[in-house]
Amino acid sequence: MLIGKLWSFSGPRSYFVPFFRHFYNSPNMAKSKFEYVRSFETDDTCLRNCYIVVRLDGRNFHKFSEQHGFTKPNDNRALGLMTRSAQSVMEELEDIIIAYGQSDEFSFVFKRTSNWFKRRASKLMTHVASQFSSSYVFYWKEYFEEQPLLYPPSFDGRVVLYPTNRNLRDYLSWRQADCHINNLYNTVFWTLVQKGGLTTAQAEDRLKGTLAADKNEILFSEFDINYNNESALHRKGTILLWKKHEETVIRRMKQPNAEEKEVPVTRSKRRVENLYCDIIGEQFWEEHPDILEEDNC
Amino acid sequence: MLIGKLWSFSGPRSYFVPFFRHFYNSPNMAKSKFEYVRSFETDDTCLRNCYIVVRLDGRNFHKFSEQHGFTKPNDNRALGLMTRSAQSVMEELEDIIIAYGQSDEFSFVFKRTSNWFKRRASKLMTHVASQFSSSYVFYWKEYFEEQPLLYPPSFDGRVVLYPTNRNLRDYLSWRQADCHINNLYNTVFWTLVQKGGLTTAQAEDRLKGTLAADKNEILFSEFDINYNNESALHRKGTILLWKKHEETVIRRMKQPNAEEKEVPVTRSKRRVENLYCDIIGEQFWEEHPDILEEDNC
Amino acid sequence: MLIGKLWSFSGPRSYFVPFFRHFYNSPNMAKSKFEYVRSFETDDTCLRNCYIVVRLDGRNFHKFSEQHGFTKPNDNRALGLMTRSAQSVMEELEDIIIAYGQSDEFSFVFKRTSNWFKRRASKLMTHVASQFSSSYVFYWKEYFEEQPLLYPPSFDGRVVLYPTNRNLRDYLSWRQADCHINNLYNTVFWTLVQKGGLTTAQAEDRLKGTLAADKNEILFSEFDINYNNESALHRKGTILLWKKHEETVIRRMKQPNAEEKEVPVTRSKRRVENLYCDIIGEQFWEEHPDILEEDNC
Amino acid sequence: MLIGKLWSFSGPRSYFVPFFRHFYNSPNMAKSKFEYVRSFETDDTCLRNCYIVVRLDGRNFHKFSEQHGFTKPNDNRALGLMTRSAQSVMEELEDIIIAYGQSDEFSFVFKRTSNWFKRRASKLMTHVASQFSSSYVFYWKEYFEEQPLLYPPSFDGRVVLYPTNRNLRDYLSWRQADCHINNLYNTVFWTLVQKGGLTTAQAEDRLKGTLAADKNEILFSEFDINYNNESALHRKGTILLWKKHEETVIRRMKQPNAEEKEVPVTRSKRRVENLYCDIIGEQFWEEHPDILEEDNC
Repeated sequence: MLIGKLWSFSGPRSYFVPFFRHFYNSPNMAKSKFEYVRSFETDDTCLRNCYIVVRLDGRNFHKFSEQHGFTKPNDNRALGLMTRSAQSVMEELEDIIIAYGQSDEFSFVFKRTSNWFKRRASKLMTHVASQFSSSYVFYWKEYFEEQPLLYPPSFDGRVVLYPTNRNLRDYLSWRQADCHINNLYNTVFWTLVQKGGLTTAQAEDRLKGTLAADKNEILFSEFDINYNNESALHRKGTILLWKKHEETVIRRMKQPNAEEKEVPVTRSKRRVENLYCDIIGEQFWEEHPDILEEDNC
Repeated sequence: MLIGKLWSFSGPRSYFVPFFRHFYNSPNMAKSKFEYVRSFETDDTCLRNCYIVVRLDGRNFHKFSEQHGFTKPNDNRALGLMTRSAQSVMEELEDIIIAYGQSDEFSFVFKRTSNWFKRRASKLMTHVASQFSSSYVFYWKEYFEEQPLLYPPSFDGRVVLYPTNRNLRDYLSWRQADCHINNLYNTVFWTLVQKGGLTTAQAEDRLKGTLAADKNEILFSEFDINYNNESALHRKGTILLWKKHEETVIRRMKQPNAEEKEVPVTRSKRRVENLYCDIIGEQFWEEHPDILEEDNC
Repeated sequence: MLIGKLWSFSGPRSYFVPFFRHFYNSPNMAKSKFEYVRSFETDDTCLRNCYIVVRLDGRNFHKFSEQHGFTKPNDNRALGLMTRSAQSVMEELEDIIIAYGQSDEFSFVFKRTSNWFKRRASKLMTHVASQFSSSYVFYWKEYFEEQPLLYPPSFDGRVVLYPTNRNLRDYLSWRQADCHINNLYNTVFWTLVQKGGLTTAQAEDRLKGTLAADKNEILFSEFDINYNNESALHRKGTILLWKKHEETVIRRMKQPNAEEKEVPVTRSKRRVENLYCDIIGEQFWEEHPDILEEDNC
Repeated sequence: MLIGKLWSFSGPRSYFVPFFRHFYNSPNMAKSKFEYVRSFETDDTCLRNCYIVVRLDGRNFHKFSEQHGFTKPNDNRALGLMTRSAQSVMEELEDIIIAYGQSDEFSFVFKRTSNWFKRRASKLMTHVASQFSSSYVFYWKEYFEEQPLLYPPSFDGRVVLYPTNRNLRDYLSWRQADCHINNLYNTVFWTLVQKGGLTTAQAEDRLKGTLAADKNEILFSEFDINYNNESALHRKGTILLWKKHEETVIRRMKQPNAEEKEVPVTRSKRRVENLYCDIIGEQFWEEHPDILEEDNC
């Protein structure tokens, strides 16, 4: 009865007219008229049976670290916050089997058979970038305490696929070798500045053309520092793994025709574990045979 | 002189041995051995001369909104925070020409000739997702004041390309028609519950099969609400645009052979403006002819 | 009754055992066990509302043309065969609206709204490459008569998308400008050799660093050739278009309650037309307004 | 001296004016003005360290086979021509390690480390499709002799990547299982028609719902045919492999300070070999250990 009147587009009940004038006769029809635009979305499914790596990199973190007074060459608060954020990502996206971070970057490896988000690359990388970034701000205070965060930082990401265990291990080795090279350089550079009294320009000049051996020698002979005794966190970066552990909880249970009683129940749980060790050699992979799946699957 | 000794891998200066044993003879060579893994990255450049749309959607925001006591059907604090975060994205990525948000989603449109990040889809969408998410946590307190954020929220994103102005406008129309349909439903639903005393199950039942006209009529005849007078923010969603304005600053300047003096300098600046209006019809686009570029370019 | 015996894998009826030993209990189950490999195929749908261009290029055609004694600078038999093959492609793939060829290349343009092969890039380009190549061998004799084809030639292809009419026209202009530059060079080069008595090395040397104007002048002043009077086929390349025409056929028809009689029936048909004209300027497009669809669709 | 006159665009030397009027002042500048369209090409490099499979399928081959009177259920001329064309593809694209064909389809496998065409998917599949199609027409007479080819046939193609040996073997197994299922069906079907006197409709009816065992039983008990003794070419399809062999040629050679003499020189060459055997089980792969590369590379 009412409908006729409503659609006369006149009188006091013209509440929806302004919106509707573009339309045939209903917002649903309007929506379906436009819905064809969905077909412009492209399928970006990751090739199956490949490891999916999402790597995040801090944007303008050189400036960010200066504005927030990060200590040189390494700021343990900043590294701790990166790791805490990465942990938050792992807890949200369960198919991540290992993560590796150093400096302002973090790599997340999804198992090769993962079907998370139907393996859609865009979903995987934006979810990782988003969860990491919101966590970074959320947990800031746990690491920087009273020092305020001046503005929201950002990270960009990418997806790379690796078909074999060898390729994946080489990817992780590449990042750890990069960590080593940068940290050795930064350690010598800031030692020359902070303990050697050089200006940053002089330190840069001094290191021009030096090899790893030269840098080790500068540390050792001039500052009595054995680089190998420096913090493993700084030299090796941070590895995040799942560690299974047993947990015993007391449950009140009731059997049919029996009194309720308290029973200890053992559950297998897993939590993220931090390691700061070499992942280039065989030893790490022999000690953690469950991370990688067989190639021949 | 030293180098020979260093590479003997023995004696007290063996500081780098543990790391090096996997390698030929230097970390740089090690890194370059692994660097081939970079060639597994794929090029995801967006087709040129197309509008690039990045849309973000809140993950599990139904649960998030309940845990944080969002008011129903719309929470102005939450909508304000979404808009503030989107504004932060626009200020960081200058080639965004318009953004549109409603509920827990936001779409960002890059100009068709943009060369930001060399049009790499992964960089564009992860940067947007990251900046939005860190901003959401960063600005939380400005909108929710004492109410704490319980955990870091996340958003996923996607990239869609639109070749013509018509396609882009239809995309934005699709999202605004979606806003209208959902908001009308939610408005009636929560009015039935909050003012009509129905349970949520009863309200759902009552609305089953109703058309837009029926919903308008329920609001009007039973609750004396003219839907068209409801908040435009809720009915239309939020449009973000760049608005140019002139700014006059006083500068101390010195001409050659003259005394320094204070001079007013006018600069053209731009800032993000919020609108809550119809973008489906022609009027909006006639009033803002600068947003879209000609198709024939 | 039989089935039990059959599956005992023994006795005289063991005809399928050798094949089956890898399997559970049937070839269909075996096939479905392997069928998961289909999910490794990727979706390569072309972005909608863009022109789809497939361009083919002859492989090693320099050598091919020498082995088959093509005349220099242009062999009309070879150009005719290319055009005949392109025509065969157009007749098979109806959504091609225009094709352009020169030398050993041919470009095919699918209309922007085409849904041929669901716009799958791989299907479109392989079908074009296949149809063109088989036609090239099939029609060889019509153009080269007694001269034998020595081996099967091949062409490679690619797909490029163009979002606007301007982009598509610029693509075609690019190919025609390329035709002009190459043909002018080749015309002068072979005139110097064939009529001027230079060796190829001398001709190459003579042309080093010359501009278009210099080349025109050589032709004009030394050989009395006005380049503009040379064959349009060679200077402009070949454009293939659909041309509609009416066709009248006599049909025997029978109306109810009437005698059968012969009736002339007019049908609109279309066939491929060859043109050798400028497609860079406006005139061509004004004369053929039906080729392109409006951008604003 | 001449240039000024030439570019005056007047007088009798206006030979290039018609072409040039769209341009600034030269065809090269014109071309470079349009050349931006190249940037619309997309990079379709295949993920490294994966096997690249190109599969071709005959288009409308049901109709093609009827029009050319192919014998049922298998035409050895047609199968031979398919194999000959595939061989021509293998000889042109050396990184193909194995090919498998049945009915009107052929799959070509590129080695996982191939860098042919820089692994560009479009180039790989169009080249395969083109070479196969031109060869099909070229070699037609060798198989069909006096029977004419009525029109140029076409094949479409696709690219699929497989990261591991297991995946690749499962792909080939999938195609061979498909061959088995189809050939068994077709063998029974045409036996019922050709020897059993059934119409095609009756034969279809008879086979509805039958399992492999039932079909074998029909052949065995009604027609005294042991399916396992049927031609391996029909039951297994065709495998193409590279076979190395030594070749001795006599060369006239001259050592310094010695007379020229004839010397036998042994060269390792390879040629394509045809096999018709099971590739689902282990035996084939154990006998040909060189086809696949290790996963762990």
